[in-house]
Amino acid sequence: MTAADLEKILSPADIRGKSIEELAQLASAMRKTLIEKLAAHGGHVGPNLGMIEAIIALHYVFDTPNDKIVFDVSHQTYPHKMLTGRMKAFTEPAHYDDVTGYTAPEENPEYDLFSLGHTSSSVALAAGLAKARDLAGGEENVVAVIGDGSLSGGVAFEGLDYGATLGTNFIVVVNDNDMSIAENHGGIYADLHLLRNTNGTGEPNLFRSMGYAYRYVNYGNDLRSLIDMFRSVKDIKYPVVVHLNTMKGMGLPVAEANKEAFHFSGPFNPETGAPVMADAGEDYEGIFTSLMSELMSQRKDVVTITAGTPGAIGFSKELRKAAGKQFVDVGIAEQAAVDVASGLAKGGMRPVVGFVSTFLQRAYDQFAQDIALNHQAATFVVFYGSVFGMNDETHLGFFDISLLSNIPGLLVLTPTSKEEYEAMIRWAVDQKTVPVVVRTPGGQVVSRKDIDILKDYSHPSYEIVREGGKVALIGVGTFFETMKEAADKLKTKGIEVTLINPRSVSELDKSALDRLKDYSLVITAEDGVVDGGYGQKVASYLGTSSVKVVNLGLPKKFLNKYSAKELVEACGLTSDSIAERVEAEA
Amino acid sequence: MTAADLEKILSPADIRGKSIEELAQLASAMRKTLIEKLAAHGGHVGPNLGMIEAIIALHYVFDTPNDKIVFDVSHQTYPHKMLTGRMKAFTEPAHYDDVTGYTAPEENPEYDLFSLGHTSSSVALAAGLAKARDLAGGEENVVAVIGDGSLSGGVAFEGLDYGATLGTNFIVVVNDNDMSIAENHGGIYADLHLLRNTNGTGEPNLFRSMGYAYRYVNYGNDLRSLIDMFRSVKDIKYPVVVHLNTMKGMGLPVAEANKEAFHFSGPFNPETGAPVMADAGEDYEGIFTSLMSELMSQRKDVVTITAGTPGAIGFSKELRKAAGKQFVDVGIAEQAAVDVASGLAKGGMRPVVGFVSTFLQRAYDQFAQDIALNHQAATFVVFYGSVFGMNDETHLGFFDISLLSNIPGLLVLTPTSKEEYEAMIRWAVDQKTVPVVVRTPGGQVVSRKDIDILKDYSHPSYEIVREGGKVALIGVGTFFETMKEAADKLKTKGIEVTLINPRSVSELDKSALDRLKDYSLVITAEDGVVDGGYGQKVASYLGTSSVKVVNLGLPKKFLNKYSAKELVEACGLTSDSIAERVEAEA
Repeated sequence: MTAADLEKILSPADIRGKSIEELAQLASAMRKTLIEKLAAHGGHVGPNLGMIEAIIALHYVFDTPNDKIVFDVSHQTYPHKMLTGRMKAFTEPAHYDDVTGYTAPEENPEYDLFSLGHTSSSVALAAGLAKARDLAGGEENVVAVIGDGSLSGGVAFEGLDYGATLGTNFIVVVNDNDMSIAENHGGIYADLHLLRNTNGTGEPNLFRSMGYAYRYVNYGNDLRSLIDMFRSVKDIKYPVVVHLNTMKGMGLPVAEANKEAFHFSGPFNPETGAPVMADAGEDYEGIFTSLMSELMSQRKDVVTITAGTPGAIGFSKELRKAAGKQFVDVGIAEQAAVDVASGLAKGGMRPVVGFVSTFLQRAYDQFAQDIALNHQAATFVVFYGSVFGMNDETHLGFFDISLLSNIPGLLVLTPTSKEEYEAMIRWAVDQKTVPVVVRTPGGQVVSRKDIDILKDYSHPSYEIVREGGKVALIGVGTFFETMKEAADKLKTKGIEVTLINPRSVSELDKSALDRLKDYSLVITAEDGVVDGGYGQKVASYLGTSSVKVVNLGLPKKFLNKYSAKELVEACGLTSDSIAERVEAEA
Repeated sequence: MTAADLEKILSPADIRGKSIEELAQLASAMRKTLIEKLAAHGGHVGPNLGMIEAIIALHYVFDTPNDKIVFDVSHQTYPHKMLTGRMKAFTEPAHYDDVTGYTAPEENPEYDLFSLGHTSSSVALAAGLAKARDLAGGEENVVAVIGDGSLSGGVAFEGLDYGATLGTNFIVVVNDNDMSIAENHGGIYADLHLLRNTNGTGEPNLFRSMGYAYRYVNYGNDLRSLIDMFRSVKDIKYPVVVHLNTMKGMGLPVAEANKEAFHFSGPFNPETGAPVMADAGEDYEGIFTSLMSELMSQRKDVVTITAGTPGAIGFSKELRKAAGKQFVDVGIAEQAAVDVASGLAKGGMRPVVGFVSTFLQRAYDQFAQDIALNHQAATFVVFYGSVFGMNDETHLGFFDISLLSNIPGLLVLTPTSKEEYEAMIRWAVDQKTVPVVVRTPGGQVVSRKDIDILKDYSHPSYEIVREGGKVALIGVGTFFETMKEAADKLKTKGIEVTLINPRSVSELDKSALDRLKDYSLVITAEDGVVDGGYGQKVASYLGTSSVKVVNLGLPKKFLNKYSAKELVEACGLTSDSIAERVEAEA
């Protein structure tokens, strides 16, 4: 099939008359097209290549969009997009950016039911759809698709538990490729392994124990097997799990061989797998892993923890192996990651959890109850908590300042350079009294050799980098450098300002702020949403004095695929804009 | 045994030499003592009465405090407290208030490892302790106790999944009394039922499917059975689940017969079960249930949802029965409650989730991703989100304003009276475009017949109740009445002020606030923590104008067993204090 043939497919109706042979040709052409786009453009490689046949079979058998499919985390939905009116975004390089990497109702409201990018929610969402159908007297099929890796997330279990009680049509397709983002961790994976090794006949069976009928497809990339199975469960009158044994990265040898590296990849050479883009040089993940590897080798009480995203925090297979028992991956299970850290701290260890900002949201209650309320001195290092982090609407890193800094007793540190970053993590690991969050700065690595390192970060203590004039610039984390640049620009114009690194956003250094009460202007800049953030605390504290306060930061919006440069400019978070504001005031 | 005999038990060591007969006498005396305290003082009745024997057996067999026990939600730990140095708090009415209702490290740091009051976390916390033991080369037993109701919470599953991978001593005691707070809901409960009915031999077996060895105790209130079982798993070298079939409310006929009513109870007559305290009259739970029952009977698309706490939102067994399929209890599974609501809204239904403030924390990610980002017009009604709510440090209702109002696109409404409360819920259910949170006011029910009801609450629109002078009082929700009283007091002294009900705390009514820019003073008062809350948004917005802003609200602290009256006074949240402040300024 040519690209032109593929482009004739405008909706699933266009594939429903085809023979198995034609569908096989379609799968082959889609795979070739997908590999071309992935190699040139980057994206989720393994999850999509492994699901081409299953997604063809789902749309072939089920009467979509009348029948409803909810794709978990939705990073396996490129084939779905190809079949639902968006083929050109895969066949034509000029249109590659027409689609996002996730289901997107704004692209196709009929077929993309939710904007999803966090794992494990598809089953509960689909259960809600099924309940709505039952109340409305409808007869459509409701299908939830979920990967084996996503099954470890608590909400997946909650959704399965509720879904089993529906007693009506509810089809959960488990896409089991024997991999999470990295390898799987958890007791349930031994059971999935057993089921795969026994052609689905083994006992115990997790899904049956939760109240589901159970079917197994051993050749989860075979169209005939998939179509037969989906036909057999279509219009079923009770909840059923269809367990597919699929191959992550299917059809691309480098991806089949390196499943973790090709879960998600930037542009790559499809023959060798080599990345197209040169290594960007020093980054904070590398600084973090070097530091943690050093600490773990020196001290047997230091433990590094991840909730299923070791790569995102810089821990390659080799580094994990070197850390041995001191590296813990709890699976995609953020709540457990925080609670296991709490238990480790209580047991005398020094746990450090590396978290992607957008995923730590899933553990707010554990941060509040099991860490902060219980004074467990665990350390949490946040990655991509920045405007310079991920820019999918589902993966924004803007919200964690508001989320974590308003929890009593949780110290949220905001280093401004690699030296301060290292110093803060070292201190957090050394002390045993305070739970600490360290926000990894966004953007390029910054070095500040003149940094004033503290022996104790537990009490609010602002670094007054320079003092003068009646304007103070408070630059938080990433945006300290911007404030410093603004201060430098103003200095060349003869305007002196006070420049402050607050070091922490969870409590105010009131004595430092008291010195600003007779200033004319205080500007705060933070790498997070203004609402509920640090600047508003300063505005509130200084609310009864005459000094004016301006809070700069990001808007309270779910932005999608934004340009960081443009966003930063629009928010006035550039040194030019800040300097102009001060000049206008002065 | 007399009270004096009981009081001789200072630690578990004091029961370890006893015979089974003596232990049975101990259990009997503890039960009698516990019933007397519960009847006179109130507390968690059923959970504690059902676990007396198991807790005696645990402390008898295991070498506590060297061996570690983590009690889930810890509302079953009164017998534990009796055996660990706190007997007088049960035998002597004058000392009843010496202990809290939950494990409390400040009462006994050796035996109470965590302050716990939210369900489902014990397994993950204990897994962390077990991992710490393994890294330190220790040999102590680590035991997690969890109830069947708590098993439905996602973090329980995450903890079980991780715990199974430890490969070392890890003992999970499942206290199965066939009840959650109300009846259980979820697919796993059919499996627990099967296991109980087959003396633990049935298949499938949830726990084995997750990687645990499995043991069953059919007589979970029989000391001999329990002791034999715990002896058999003590020092076990791998993870095991010990499934106990216990009787909630054991030994108190009214509690055995009315398990839901006697999960938690105020003081009651132990013979009849009748409550000692008279019905307090009209309350917001009653207003909510009347309204929802009316709406559900009129409209088949309205669905009321709870995550395992139907009683806390006013839905008695009778009301649930009347609502039929339009009432959904997903079990203790807050994340699923939010996602099921999202699916229901997507499917055209009008879901209303009733949430206890402190528990909605567990679903932040679902509020953000699956409701707000996806614009699903579900309604969430928050109960006990108030200084006048629960006052255990684990159950505070201060944090939800900061948590929810900083999520983009989530409308958080703060009614000031029953008329406004009803109007806001009715509007939220009628419209289909905006996800809405309605915070139930705290304290006594307030009636404001002159309330200005809006046709549309989706856009910020402050109610300017009266206008005058150069001071504005903005009273949020519960504290509108306080502000109104302050305004009235000031009026008697000839001081006119502007009085505002902001109606919502998630977005500012900027045109209303712009009119305050030439005021001398704006005071905000909200029923939540100041940090990250509504007032700080106002302070930030008015930061560049000359008006002074004072933000009143609650401190960012985990307070325990506070007096609401004293706390409100300490925070300046009284009409006298506010009036004085205005007078000082004017």
